Amino acid sequence: MTIAQNDIAIGALQLPQPYLLFLGDTTEGGYAKTAYGLRDWAPEKCMGEYRLAGASVTTGLQALSPAEAEAAGARSMLIGVANGGGVIPPNWVPALIEALEAGLDLVSGMHVRLRDVPGLAEPAERLGRRLIDVRHPPEGLTVANGAKRSGKRLLTVGTDCALGKKYTALALARAFADRGVDADFRASGQTGIMIAGGGLPMDAVVSDFGAGAAELLSPDAAPDHWDVVEGQGSLFHPAYAGVSLGLLHGSQPDVIVVCHQPGRTHVLGAPGYALPSIEETIELNLRMGARTNPAIRCAGLSFNTAHLDADAAEALMAQESRRLGLPVADPIRGGDAFARLVDACLA
Amino acid sequence: MTIAQNDIAIGALQLPQPYLLFLGDTTEGGYAKTAYGLRDWAPEKCMGEYRLAGASVTTGLQALSPAEAEAAGARSMLIGVANGGGVIPPNWVPALIEALEAGLDLVSGMHVRLRDVPGLAEPAERLGRRLIDVRHPPEGLTVANGAKRSGKRLLTVGTDCALGKKYTALALARAFADRGVDADFRASGQTGIMIAGGGLPMDAVVSDFGAGAAELLSPDAAPDHWDVVEGQGSLFHPAYAGVSLGLLHGSQPDVIVVCHQPGRTHVLGAPGYALPSIEETIELNLRMGARTNPAIRCAGLSFNTAHLDADAAEALMAQESRRLGLPVADPIRGGDAFARLVDACLA
Repeated sequence: MTIAQNDIAIGALQLPQPYLLFLGDTTEGGYAKTAYGLRDWAPEKCMGEYRLAGASVTTGLQALSPAEAEAAGARSMLIGVANGGGVIPPNWVPALIEALEAGLDLVSGMHVRLRDVPGLAEPAERLGRRLIDVRHPPEGLTVANGAKRSGKRLLTVGTDCALGKKYTALALARAFADRGVDADFRASGQTGIMIAGGGLPMDAVVSDFGAGAAELLSPDAAPDHWDVVEGQGSLFHPAYAGVSLGLLHGSQPDVIVVCHQPGRTHVLGAPGYALPSIEETIELNLRMGARTNPAIRCAGLSFNTAHLDADAAEALMAQESRRLGLPVADPIRGGDAFARLVDACLA
Repeated sequence: MTIAQNDIAIGALQLPQPYLLFLGDTTEGGYAKTAYGLRDWAPEKCMGEYRLAGASVTTGLQALSPAEAEAAGARSMLIGVANGGGVIPPNWVPALIEALEAGLDLVSGMHVRLRDVPGLAEPAERLGRRLIDVRHPPEGLTVANGAKRSGKRLLTVGTDCALGKKYTALALARAFADRGVDADFRASGQTGIMIAGGGLPMDAVVSDFGAGAAELLSPDAAPDHWDVVEGQGSLFHPAYAGVSLGLLHGSQPDVIVVCHQPGRTHVLGAPGYALPSIEETIELNLRMGARTNPAIRCAGLSFNTAHLDADAAEALMAQESRRLGLPVADPIRGGDAFARLVDACLA
């Protein structure tokens, strides 16, 4: 697997590493996927975590103040949470300034640019520290043309946002490579880009260019090459469905893997919106995806079972696999179930 | 009908009028909807048209050079065409400079900013002329929350892009007002904004904020107030479907009117993509729209029959109305068929 994407650079961005992961005062685990992703997929780049009073989310890494992290070799503090809208609340700003004063640069994947957050530009300039925003789409994007591209593509989709689409894509790309398949992980969000060092931040692209950006993200390739594309949002999310549809149309996937978190009953960030069923999610993604790739198929399900014990997770996945007639696996747990999901993707 | 939208300003933008409409060397009528819309909905603001050699598209307004238009009282030349991607080709630039030298400002709804087009910034500055880009979303947009809003909403949707969604919304808003219904036209594209003097350019909004912008475009209103929202693109367009879905989810329409151009067989700008059927277009829009407004219904069809004679158009619409069991009308032709469509919208 090639994680770095040399053919799709995000400018000359070089992130200062290792990172101190900043979690703010976050209490919603679903919003901390940036920090979790870096811990699990780039552990050598993560020195520890820094949290504010009130935070209940943790990566499990050692707690370090910015000064302690800097003394231990960290070179930047990376904002490891992404709340709705990508806003940096005012009560985080003193901690960000503390990091600058400790000698750390700041790295953010939020919509808002760090230099536009009141109170940050002045100390950064005075201290000679960098404010680095990962979420900048490249210049020169164009509208999609819908033309069929060579090579094979897999897209992870979901019943909701923030439940494992990036994880699943990373695990599948790694598993493909372990079997000798030529595969690239294609990052479509800020965390994936931080891990991969390249990609396209789909949610920050101008709407008209959404599908066009997705076409650019997985360009023509050799016939037996796989691009494993990180999905975004959900066709059923009242805020993000447009992003999901542009990515689905532009990616032209041959295969989708549907990601789900058992037990989640409502859409994240949209009170009153029930989660769609797995069957409905498969059906609608196949129907919409067939517009640009009539050969699209669903290879199986990826369940996020972090909240279950091993026996309960295994029993649930086996039951759901029988019910749906498709492989169901948790890529974090791996095992035979995950091997069957990989088989089905490559079948 | 209130066309101006004082509660949703696009900054302090004041367009210099009247306009000279610039058509470039355009040969694709579907790309000239900006010019056609201004001619038909703001004729008092249009002095004439200016075309390059090779153009086959015309508004039928008198041909004027920039100098002639300026002498007759025009204050700006407005780019009246929107090709795929919103790009200004290099061979248009001499004509744009000619307009600046004749004393006209430039007005554009293209994605690219006029000041970023090579060759324009210098003469504009030297001559004291303004380069005005209409397609700037306001600052401070947020993600959608999906919460139900008060008041009634109608959204025009389509089997494709560039076939009458703006026209239909303008005509319906005017017809609602003629019946004493409190109604606003809500512009979602550059031409509509030029006509209305306000609105939100949906295709230029950052993807994550697409549905949120649509929520902002038709805010809470009195229970019997109608917002008639201009649709964009099509759920079946491989480049623009994400924009259409965000607008559909965020608008939460009670009523959709499906716009279609009889005889169009393929999607504009996407070779090889067949147009969806009317029935499929109704069904998919109702299905997707029900996610944010379960009471959504289709009131009928708006046909663009400009290429047919009156008898053929009437016969076709009557036949399709019987087949579909819904009113079918061409708002440009008006008449009893259009009155029945308005009845169905307000029923």
